[in-house]
Amino acid sequence: MLEKIDHIGIAVKNLEEATAFYKTMGIEPYHFEEVISQRVKVAFIKIGESNIELLEPTSDDSPIAKFLEKKGEGIHHIAYRVDDIQNALDALKADGAKLINEEPMDGAHGMKVAFVHPKSVNGVLTELSQLQTK
Amino acid sequence: MLEKIDHIGIAVKNLEEATAFYKTMGIEPYHFEEVISQRVKVAFIKIGESNIELLEPTSDDSPIAKFLEKKGEGIHHIAYRVDDIQNALDALKADGAKLINEEPMDGAHGMKVAFVHPKSVNGVLTELSQLQTK
Repeated sequence: MLEKIDHIGIAVKNLEEATAFYKTMGIEPYHFEEVISQRVKVAFIKIGESNIELLEPTSDDSPIAKFLEKKGEGIHHIAYRVDDIQNALDALKADGAKLINEEPMDGAHGMKVAFVHPKSVNGVLTELSQLQTK
Repeated sequence: MLEKIDHIGIAVKNLEEATAFYKTMGIEPYHFEEVISQRVKVAFIKIGESNIELLEPTSDDSPIAKFLEKKGEGIHHIAYRVDDIQNALDALKADGAKLINEEPMDGAHGMKVAFVHPKSVNGVLTELSQLQTK
């Protein structure tokens, strides 16, 4: 069911400074975007079939601001691409996994997404994502 | 220079229990191995072009045991595949990045590997890896 690592979300204090490592490795971000609902600015960096998403809070009440305050910069979540998100959620539910979203939501880039609680994935906040068009 | 996410290393208390999420998602680990020098047992799970490496300590003085004690289960490091590791290390050094290994070491699976300090990669312990044969 897991087709690839879709992206790794990394909480950072400053988007511009955070791109330094990737630029030194020869990769420029290909897209910047502001997600108003999450109060973050995001830079997307393509590495192979996956993306690194750098997340900078735009407000002190952003979930990413709270993460930075508590844990400092670092990995916030991993997102896997799945072929059938409802099927994946049903299988996890049947196994007693702790789901943050019982039903898929509309995400960015025309994706359906849902989060699984870190308790059920070895301490890692985990996002499942499926192309809407599929 | 970064060709793909080679693997994501996740520190876990119990390898068998830690595979539950991936099994529910239809993926069995394809390889188990004990790395004596690091005092860990490792399970490898293939997702797309990348791997998840689950790391369980085999001794209280394992670096992974110390990580678990301090932070609990979660992501320990991200490894990127590079085409030329010496070139990558030289570029990072020139930029003033903090390297854990100034020179590549021999890693598992016939790879050359080197670690970059989290301070220089947005709080993420970062491994660079290159196929020896290249």
